[in-house]
Amino acid sequence: MHIVGLMSGTSLDGIDVALLDVQEIEGHLSTKLIDFKTVPFQTGIINEIRKSLRIDQSDSQLICSLNFKLGVLFAESVKMICSKNGIAASELGVIGSHGQTIFHQPEQVDSFAASTLQIGEPAVIAYETGATVVSNFRTMDMAAGGQGAPLVPFTELLLYRDSHKNRLLQNIGGIGNVTVLPKNATLDHVFAFDTGPGNMIIDDLMQRLFSRDYDDGGDIAAHGHVNEDLLAYCMDNSFITAPIPKSTGRELFGTEYTDKLLTTYGHLAPADLVATLTMFTAKTIVSNYEQFVFPKLAIDEIIISGGGSYNKTLLRYLAELLKGHCEVLTQEDIGYSSDAKEAVAFGLLAYETLHGRPSNVPAATGARDHVILGNVTYPPLKYKEEGTTHA
Amino acid sequence: MHIVGLMSGTSLDGIDVALLDVQEIEGHLSTKLIDFKTVPFQTGIINEIRKSLRIDQSDSQLICSLNFKLGVLFAESVKMICSKNGIAASELGVIGSHGQTIFHQPEQVDSFAASTLQIGEPAVIAYETGATVVSNFRTMDMAAGGQGAPLVPFTELLLYRDSHKNRLLQNIGGIGNVTVLPKNATLDHVFAFDTGPGNMIIDDLMQRLFSRDYDDGGDIAAHGHVNEDLLAYCMDNSFITAPIPKSTGRELFGTEYTDKLLTTYGHLAPADLVATLTMFTAKTIVSNYEQFVFPKLAIDEIIISGGGSYNKTLLRYLAELLKGHCEVLTQEDIGYSSDAKEAVAFGLLAYETLHGRPSNVPAATGARDHVILGNVTYPPLKYKEEGTTHA
Repeated sequence: MHIVGLMSGTSLDGIDVALLDVQEIEGHLSTKLIDFKTVPFQTGIINEIRKSLRIDQSDSQLICSLNFKLGVLFAESVKMICSKNGIAASELGVIGSHGQTIFHQPEQVDSFAASTLQIGEPAVIAYETGATVVSNFRTMDMAAGGQGAPLVPFTELLLYRDSHKNRLLQNIGGIGNVTVLPKNATLDHVFAFDTGPGNMIIDDLMQRLFSRDYDDGGDIAAHGHVNEDLLAYCMDNSFITAPIPKSTGRELFGTEYTDKLLTTYGHLAPADLVATLTMFTAKTIVSNYEQFVFPKLAIDEIIISGGGSYNKTLLRYLAELLKGHCEVLTQEDIGYSSDAKEAVAFGLLAYETLHGRPSNVPAATGARDHVILGNVTYPPLKYKEEGTTHA
Repeated sequence: MHIVGLMSGTSLDGIDVALLDVQEIEGHLSTKLIDFKTVPFQTGIINEIRKSLRIDQSDSQLICSLNFKLGVLFAESVKMICSKNGIAASELGVIGSHGQTIFHQPEQVDSFAASTLQIGEPAVIAYETGATVVSNFRTMDMAAGGQGAPLVPFTELLLYRDSHKNRLLQNIGGIGNVTVLPKNATLDHVFAFDTGPGNMIIDDLMQRLFSRDYDDGGDIAAHGHVNEDLLAYCMDNSFITAPIPKSTGRELFGTEYTDKLLTTYGHLAPADLVATLTMFTAKTIVSNYEQFVFPKLAIDEIIISGGGSYNKTLLRYLAELLKGHCEVLTQEDIGYSSDAKEAVAFGLLAYETLHGRPSNVPAATGARDHVILGNVTYPPLKYKEEGTTHA
């Protein structure tokens, strides 16, 4: 069965679309990544997403409209990758669409309920492609008392479990998150949590100070020096020591965070600011390992994925901080695609939901139950009828 | 099969919950209303909904949080009506939840896409009740180029078709909408559209001028006089003469509308304002019939449903305006429950979706295709396992 996974992360670099071939033989899933693309967002849409992410700039009309616009863009990405590979989108077994996170609040804050909101209307995707869509994966885990994140551990177990090595899978997107994968693990042995900021603050600084989207290759950070004062200020953050499972997002490390940081430390050299915040990301990751992983498990390998895996300075900082503990590798080092990882995950989670199977990992999210993630949206019957005619 | 329908309308008077018994014999649906309740909203939630309805007061955090809070309240309503009738909620065949409309914009406006947004998280309802939920009915019709409303015509045909009479089913909730049901009609003969304001402006005036939620029985309007000047000002509204199919909501006739109206006409006696806006609702309804119904079809009966059917002054205005054309009846006059009508409809629409059947009426919404409405969200497997154990 051909399936498609769609991911559009907090880093706003575009729509990740993965085309997979999935075969299920005697309950064992075998998957092959046929193709992967990142379709960049146009500036207009990026601005609308940025507005919808800010409490002071978002409103019901914008969110309502953007939900439909993103649905159209997601559908176009699916049709593009299908057409490029000679597959009719309406023949897809399922599309798994993560959606764009507009708000994620894993715990109650004042009068606001623990809740999460992803947009990118599945009805539009199903109507435009002719395929069944599974979307809104995070809400059911939160309904079951979980943090709604991370959801990749299920597919990470499927794809990365090793019979000899204890592995950490560290994703560095807008946010950093890690999955702990002991050798020969089953679902009950896997745990995962958000480590804190990924590229989010670095990207925000690059846009404000250098008018670039991100620190390409970590070059700017490589030319700066870490300011210990600022680093100490950043590390004084209760999320870093909060117990696991835990998850975070733009609510803690978004533009309001950078605003505040620049108020006090805006006088530092721009490259020093980028270097320090790059070290901050590395230190939040390692500090979390030291508190919540290393005491339990001797780790053999850390495999880095996400945009952060292309930041050589960040990788160097991580390797320095982890020297003597374990090896730091990237997805590409072990023959996978770092970029495709999350899109692949949501394609496979959709496949599980379509088959009525639960796919959250309670030890990763804190949920009370294994639950079936997401909603199923059906395409119009006309595609089926066409299919019948052609058959 | 027992099913539940949930509706929470623009009038914000609470959660309508209908418990139905549905039997399908040779493709023919037979339905029985077992019980119906309106669970009033608490003031705190009404205030949050009101904020989320206003462009200038809504934001991503509020909408994200309210989506989950409403999910909890919807689930509690389902459990309440099930428990009262000795039925386990987890044994329900399906729950159809309309959700609370936060924004509905059937046509593109400036840079905002045609779109609609209902909230009341289905994952929370499914998790808390243990039943499968169908929700977000309007988005697929809009994805197919329709207005996303009205969606009741499908079930109206099922329940109200007569072999001898041409009927109009006029609902007067926050918004007014009519379904045209010729005798012996099939889906292809049914059409429907929003007529304009229902009780929305009247309720808003009652709250501002009399500190009451609505004009109980139409008593206030009965003591006022219609101001022809204000009535002419109101009738000068392009929605009234806009071609069908058409739909509207708080965007046109919400608090911003009342704000504007009171700026110019705030000096009138409060009862006169209420009387005039009651007549405005009646006239928008009749004006739409004169333009879009009477030229095509001789109508025998008009059956009024919704909160407006309890406003005697509104009924009297309608009867006066329609004198010589047709009889004005209420749902109760023909042995149905006016209050339950929409909740029943969304229960039955959920039943259709669960069976993979389309249930929009393109002639009513303007959609290009018959489409399967809504998303399906599954409950945790633990309920099934319990069910198996008990069996």
